[in-house]
Amino acid sequence: MSVYECSLERMTDKIKTMSKFGDAGHGGITRYTLSPADLQAREEFTKRMKAIGALIEIDDVANVYATLPGSDPDAKRIVMASHSDSVKNGGNYDGILGVMSAMEVLETVAEKNIPHKHPLTAMIWTNEEGSLYPPAMMVSGIVCYDYLPENIKGKFKYEDMMKSKSVIDSSETFGAALDASGYKGDKKYRLSPEKYKNMFEIHIEQGPILEDAGNHVGIVDCVLGMFNYRFRFYGQTVHAGTFPMNKRQDALFAASQVICYLHSEIDKLGHPELVYTTGEIVCHPNVHTCVPDYVDFSLDCRHESPELREKVLGIVKGCAAREWAGCRCEVEKMWNRDTVYWDKKLFSYVQEAAEESGISHQVLHSGAGHDAQFVAYMLPTTMIFVQSKDGLSHCEPEYSTPEHCTEGATILLNAVLKADAE
Amino acid sequence: MSVYECSLERMTDKIKTMSKFGDAGHGGITRYTLSPADLQAREEFTKRMKAIGALIEIDDVANVYATLPGSDPDAKRIVMASHSDSVKNGGNYDGILGVMSAMEVLETVAEKNIPHKHPLTAMIWTNEEGSLYPPAMMVSGIVCYDYLPENIKGKFKYEDMMKSKSVIDSSETFGAALDASGYKGDKKYRLSPEKYKNMFEIHIEQGPILEDAGNHVGIVDCVLGMFNYRFRFYGQTVHAGTFPMNKRQDALFAASQVICYLHSEIDKLGHPELVYTTGEIVCHPNVHTCVPDYVDFSLDCRHESPELREKVLGIVKGCAAREWAGCRCEVEKMWNRDTVYWDKKLFSYVQEAAEESGISHQVLHSGAGHDAQFVAYMLPTTMIFVQSKDGLSHCEPEYSTPEHCTEGATILLNAVLKADAE
Repeated sequence: MSVYECSLERMTDKIKTMSKFGDAGHGGITRYTLSPADLQAREEFTKRMKAIGALIEIDDVANVYATLPGSDPDAKRIVMASHSDSVKNGGNYDGILGVMSAMEVLETVAEKNIPHKHPLTAMIWTNEEGSLYPPAMMVSGIVCYDYLPENIKGKFKYEDMMKSKSVIDSSETFGAALDASGYKGDKKYRLSPEKYKNMFEIHIEQGPILEDAGNHVGIVDCVLGMFNYRFRFYGQTVHAGTFPMNKRQDALFAASQVICYLHSEIDKLGHPELVYTTGEIVCHPNVHTCVPDYVDFSLDCRHESPELREKVLGIVKGCAAREWAGCRCEVEKMWNRDTVYWDKKLFSYVQEAAEESGISHQVLHSGAGHDAQFVAYMLPTTMIFVQSKDGLSHCEPEYSTPEHCTEGATILLNAVLKADAE
Repeated sequence: MSVYECSLERMTDKIKTMSKFGDAGHGGITRYTLSPADLQAREEFTKRMKAIGALIEIDDVANVYATLPGSDPDAKRIVMASHSDSVKNGGNYDGILGVMSAMEVLETVAEKNIPHKHPLTAMIWTNEEGSLYPPAMMVSGIVCYDYLPENIKGKFKYEDMMKSKSVIDSSETFGAALDASGYKGDKKYRLSPEKYKNMFEIHIEQGPILEDAGNHVGIVDCVLGMFNYRFRFYGQTVHAGTFPMNKRQDALFAASQVICYLHSEIDKLGHPELVYTTGEIVCHPNVHTCVPDYVDFSLDCRHESPELREKVLGIVKGCAAREWAGCRCEVEKMWNRDTVYWDKKLFSYVQEAAEESGISHQVLHSGAGHDAQFVAYMLPTTMIFVQSKDGLSHCEPEYSTPEHCTEGATILLNAVLKADAE
């Protein structure tokens, strides 16, 4: 089987063009879903895809599909997809790289007239970030709803999603933004196992592992299982100047002790691949002259192994069995999800394509969630990662070289052709 | 010298009446300065003071003065003062107890026709809490401005104070509220050393020391010196799922370590009277899926001894010389103030009055700031504390018994008469 190569020049041009839509003026973008900037990116996608003769379809939740027909009129489609929206002050790669790579694959197929049996589709997912209208992965949650496990499903009811309020202006809803966007198409075009055979997603790594190892591309085997817990501490507000230390119940001191305790106990488990994060904290009354009477913080913990996650959970629950700085501690599960493994056959196609193309690569887990992980409950699915400079993402310095991006697209193209040849 | 007693019945009635103004429905009040509830409290004060023949004066910053003339037409006035405003969801005693005690003293003097040489004044301070229009102690800062130490003065410029914005609606200023209140009187009535001889202030203790010792009243010798520092931590935001633990620079973990370190190091100094509080924390971006790149928190530290405060400051500054969880740490002084000692003669009058009346008492420091401490730079001043149930204040369960409140007023009355007899 011959190895095809994508075009560095064309990929570079796409990156440059897409980076204009939502340009925040310091090297990154703010491109909320269905915002004017997002509509510009979608128009660019449609324009370029029409130029190579692709058929454009839009479903009822604004996902856009551009399809090149294959030689077999009865064959199901192979889709390559990611999202065009970003977080606030995000970068030029998260999401849109997967869209540009899918475009690049179709453009290469059209340019080189590469024979293929199945129709090939490049797709934009709506609202993956959920940064204006929560939750994240909203629209893949809607589209894959019937296939999702029960512990995830409840979060993505269509009616609830339409009522999701803008975090900037609570009088705006996702449903209203959808109606106003001009991108509310027909439900019949939704991604489904009846019409689609496989899905591939390229994404930036968002971590430093590839860079540290000197590899350009990651062959992803799974999305890590995780849990998210909330720790709550109940103390007593008293005056900072008049209340003796030994009688205080200081909820912030309690929370600080527990954050340090979590680090010390979880690190003792000795698993460098385990990641855990206390990213969000709330303090009440949060006044410099008052001892805090209430603090809560989040704990996000991720690892492939359910046994190891269970061990961490033991440490978490143990915290609630003790008093900290005179305060009661409660822990509550917010959500969890199991490790999602990619389709073994698609994974091996990506690995073979990487080997045959001579691009440096390694096997990786995905620590972050992606639309592909919901699709995996519905279709055989897999992912490819591209090296991220300094492992940074969700920020303006987020960067991947055009060379690495093009290499990712080349591997994607050749893996898709292997799936096509089945 | 005979010992006079104030009236439990009259005091109880005042507490009951004043507690209605701003009643928040769960046992406490919200009575922001110059709010309708505060104006009701001021009207009640004026009504009751006029009823005993007191002369009412209002200065240009809404302080209200009610004066009973003395036998010497040339004698300066002795003033008893506190504030009528509260924090949000505050209690029925902080501030207003000092006003009610001053009223009770004048009412007892009038009722019993107690001979006195100096005019005796009961006074309401405007905006001590600063809870709607910051800063706290705003109006005593304005009135005592010329006498304040340089490191405090800058905060209380008249023009700046008039522009202070409402924390609820930033289009409202203190100056506009003052104009609209009907309480903008004449500057010539302001408290000054030309017209006033001494000031006394009764306040609730706001701590548990009196209750724990079984004493009803505290004879206050000073307001503790203090400093307020800000700790800032600079890390790097990365994705919670994709970034290995050993490469993280987690600003919240750094801050948690330092809060624990401060407790451990400051406690080693072995001074149980030293109080320090980390009451306010800010975390960025404060998202459960991101490692925080920036955290800051406040440290408020109070003790009578400048040497001991200096030792704590050494620990504080030492924190900035190290890296914590890969993060840079900076510390910045926000403000500080020296210990303010009350006038020794007035202090001894209070002590003698407490002994002669047979009310259980002890000497105490004030850990909290009060208007009296600014007045102390201008006039001989002292304070009396009344036992606080469970040491609670700035909250709805704040409570002092009517008996203890009346005992406080009795000591105040007899101490004032000693100052009058000088």
